[in-house]
Amino acid sequence: MTLETARKELITLQEKLSAYDHAMGLISYDGETTAPKGTAPNRAHAMGILSEILYQLSTGKETVDLLEFLDAHREELTPREQRMVYLLLKDIRFMQKIPQEEYVEYEKFVVESQDVWYNAKNSSDFSSFEPYLTKMFDYAVRFARYAAPEKDPYDFWLNEYEPGLNKAVCDQFFDTLRQRLVPLIHAVSGQPQVSDACIKGDFPEDKQEKLALWLMETMGLDMQKVGLSTTEHPFTTSLGSHLDERITTHYYREDVSYSMFSVIHEGGHALYDTGSDEDLAYTVLDGGVSMGIHESQSRFYENILGRSEAFAKFVFPKMAELFPEQMKDYTWKDFYLAVNKVQPSLIRTEADEVTYCLHVMIRYELEKKLMAGELKVRDLPGEWNRLYKEYLGVDVPDDKHGVLQDSHWSFGAIGYFPSYALGSAYGAQFLAKMKETVDVDAALAKGDFSPMNAWNKEHIWRFGSLLTPKEILDSALGVPFDPAYYLNYLEEKCKAIYHINN
Amino acid sequence: MTLETARKELITLQEKLSAYDHAMGLISYDGETTAPKGTAPNRAHAMGILSEILYQLSTGKETVDLLEFLDAHREELTPREQRMVYLLLKDIRFMQKIPQEEYVEYEKFVVESQDVWYNAKNSSDFSSFEPYLTKMFDYAVRFARYAAPEKDPYDFWLNEYEPGLNKAVCDQFFDTLRQRLVPLIHAVSGQPQVSDACIKGDFPEDKQEKLALWLMETMGLDMQKVGLSTTEHPFTTSLGSHLDERITTHYYREDVSYSMFSVIHEGGHALYDTGSDEDLAYTVLDGGVSMGIHESQSRFYENILGRSEAFAKFVFPKMAELFPEQMKDYTWKDFYLAVNKVQPSLIRTEADEVTYCLHVMIRYELEKKLMAGELKVRDLPGEWNRLYKEYLGVDVPDDKHGVLQDSHWSFGAIGYFPSYALGSAYGAQFLAKMKETVDVDAALAKGDFSPMNAWNKEHIWRFGSLLTPKEILDSALGVPFDPAYYLNYLEEKCKAIYHINN
Repeated sequence: MTLETARKELITLQEKLSAYDHAMGLISYDGETTAPKGTAPNRAHAMGILSEILYQLSTGKETVDLLEFLDAHREELTPREQRMVYLLLKDIRFMQKIPQEEYVEYEKFVVESQDVWYNAKNSSDFSSFEPYLTKMFDYAVRFARYAAPEKDPYDFWLNEYEPGLNKAVCDQFFDTLRQRLVPLIHAVSGQPQVSDACIKGDFPEDKQEKLALWLMETMGLDMQKVGLSTTEHPFTTSLGSHLDERITTHYYREDVSYSMFSVIHEGGHALYDTGSDEDLAYTVLDGGVSMGIHESQSRFYENILGRSEAFAKFVFPKMAELFPEQMKDYTWKDFYLAVNKVQPSLIRTEADEVTYCLHVMIRYELEKKLMAGELKVRDLPGEWNRLYKEYLGVDVPDDKHGVLQDSHWSFGAIGYFPSYALGSAYGAQFLAKMKETVDVDAALAKGDFSPMNAWNKEHIWRFGSLLTPKEILDSALGVPFDPAYYLNYLEEKCKAIYHINN
Repeated sequence: MTLETARKELITLQEKLSAYDHAMGLISYDGETTAPKGTAPNRAHAMGILSEILYQLSTGKETVDLLEFLDAHREELTPREQRMVYLLLKDIRFMQKIPQEEYVEYEKFVVESQDVWYNAKNSSDFSSFEPYLTKMFDYAVRFARYAAPEKDPYDFWLNEYEPGLNKAVCDQFFDTLRQRLVPLIHAVSGQPQVSDACIKGDFPEDKQEKLALWLMETMGLDMQKVGLSTTEHPFTTSLGSHLDERITTHYYREDVSYSMFSVIHEGGHALYDTGSDEDLAYTVLDGGVSMGIHESQSRFYENILGRSEAFAKFVFPKMAELFPEQMKDYTWKDFYLAVNKVQPSLIRTEADEVTYCLHVMIRYELEKKLMAGELKVRDLPGEWNRLYKEYLGVDVPDDKHGVLQDSHWSFGAIGYFPSYALGSAYGAQFLAKMKETVDVDAALAKGDFSPMNAWNKEHIWRFGSLLTPKEILDSALGVPFDPAYYLNYLEEKCKAIYHINN
């Protein structure tokens, strides 16, 4: 094999992988959006076969030889090629350690598990999901042991979602947050409360959809490439390339803000993915690099921009146009306060910015114990409810509004949740840096996202997965990551809203 | 290779093929239903790569050796295995004759062509579609020459959609129809006309969707396995197995009958596909055998059952419930007459039963000339409009309502249209036979499709592709196929409606 041939084959291999990504990603997306409800077995069958083919392609001699040859000639490759080889080898070495049969069984199991979770959530019946979740945590432990026998299994998965992350880092990070968030929440509770009446009521779905599409356009998404569907739990998926991205939402008639902010959140993910440099298409460098950086973008758009005073002022006339009856007694200020009301609550995706991280910490504590075998899945609902009472002071009425609310565990995303908190903190520090050169509030007041999008594109999006999370943070920020920016941002915003004096 | 191993590998091969069918079918379905409008290039890229992998799997030495080994041991195989080997070899020998590069280019081209057609139709701009359609007919001729150099190219394709069909058979069949349909249409035009006012007006889409779902349930579709979406042109697709079927429709606010009968039509396809015996799943025998038999089922449900007096009587109260304002001045009889109004018109899928075959004949005449090189694609709109004037007496106002109305040519379905007429005629003869043992009208009057479904399942659906179309016709009918049944049916129905005496 010559180096020139190998370099060409490196591209061909990634194109093949991207086609399987497209196909398998679409089968999964279809299952959550459009597929008839009784078709999970058929989907699992197809996924089993495709994952077997993919496993053989990935771990086959031809592929391994190619990548090892390129790895041996690392010095002669471009940085881009080096990164491709690194990421491909990382994936393939992980796959190689899992027996093919188990890998295939797992891929089929994920399809079934998502289906069972969906039904369990809708009937608030944890017992039907329990055996699946038990098996899912078993898989997580076993696969981590295959991949890195020397490592703590939960540390392994934390690092998969955000390279560099582990329990020690998480513990410290969450401690830092806790020290200032808990007093802040206490301070808020001692103040006169704000009303969220203007976002509650009856908001027809078709109007909410119009709002969603308008928000997507406003935030600068390319509507020719980014689609919107509805699902039980909102998510974003990229179909094999940054050239076709799908976001989803869920409309609740009684609360206009849920879909609204989930669309801006998922839209942030989509901006990041579709913002990859054009020439990364159909390579493993296409799309976001880690869940931490991904959530830094989604949470940035959802909260830092989406729940800002300037944007509330801009967006309110549109709300009044779409919902004239519902909004007739309110002003933009009422809307701003409503979407920033700090209130311990049951559902993570509906939580305000200040209590949000407590929802994440609960999941982190539970995952830690489950992965260590210190908590059994059958005892999870009780422990969930206990922690919601302890951290947030709320009583969980049923598992639908408790342990079954999030879809993540149903598809094996264990170790993902901390990324939400970490990403939120990254985002606040990005904001501080961005403000050195961009008048964010002036742009938001006009509903013009282009200066912020340009900054994010320049410092984050365009790299796709070329740079590591740490390289992105370092090069974008110029100083080390520090959660103090996030806590300062939250305190400042919250104190203004609740008239808290230091 | 032992015979036992080969038999197992025969199943494994088909499971693999079914997974690719699922994936590629879904990519195509997604493109027509959900995908953002600017994503065709990404889809074409994935389809190109997957079709290349599929080509290599299908025509690779391992597969060919397996099938040739089994074919050599034909006598020792079950009839089912014999048929599997026959159908697989037929496909693979066709593929082998097409150079891989051309095969892949074609698959990519189809995605683009569908996209261009969609935009061309919506802007009624034939010129943008013209180069694609020219290329598509070129492909059809070239591929037919590759596959069967000794055969007329159009004969080759007619036989692909309905084994046994060719121009000579078609010419005779259409002549037979013409001899009785043209006088019938003349006779109708001399009678007092019926009104279709009750199906025209303003029918909100959400209500039409409710009606569609109710019709699907009423006709006995398993809603756990069959989904409904909306597209520019209604169609049915099976995702790799009879376990997951999708139908689509298009809602026109101003005409409630369009979506209604397209749903029953596509529902007929879906009943057929999902009616395959369970143990045919993931084999090439799963799902309908030919487009002629397929259309015999879709057109049977749409017209013979769906536009019958008994079903009109049953369905009208539901219409009145969903559309109380629109229906308040009408009776079931008005509805029955409206959906059976014989009137030369522009759009095939909206045509009444009597003029329907003239729409098909026009397409047949045009395909014949295009495939023979006697007509150039650039002259097609003019010729289309001329034939519509000649056959149906209508003036085509624009290409959207003319040559661009159907999606078929955009995805390479050339030679498909005659199946609609042939299937309609099969259906009428099935009805005559069915009536020997089933009281169809009594069942329809109760909205009970189960006796007809049971008959079709027993004689048609369960076989999937195990029997040839001719074997199905012979075994179900007991006498040779004869279009006189269809003409008798049409005349009888039409004469009653229009009070025509012989």
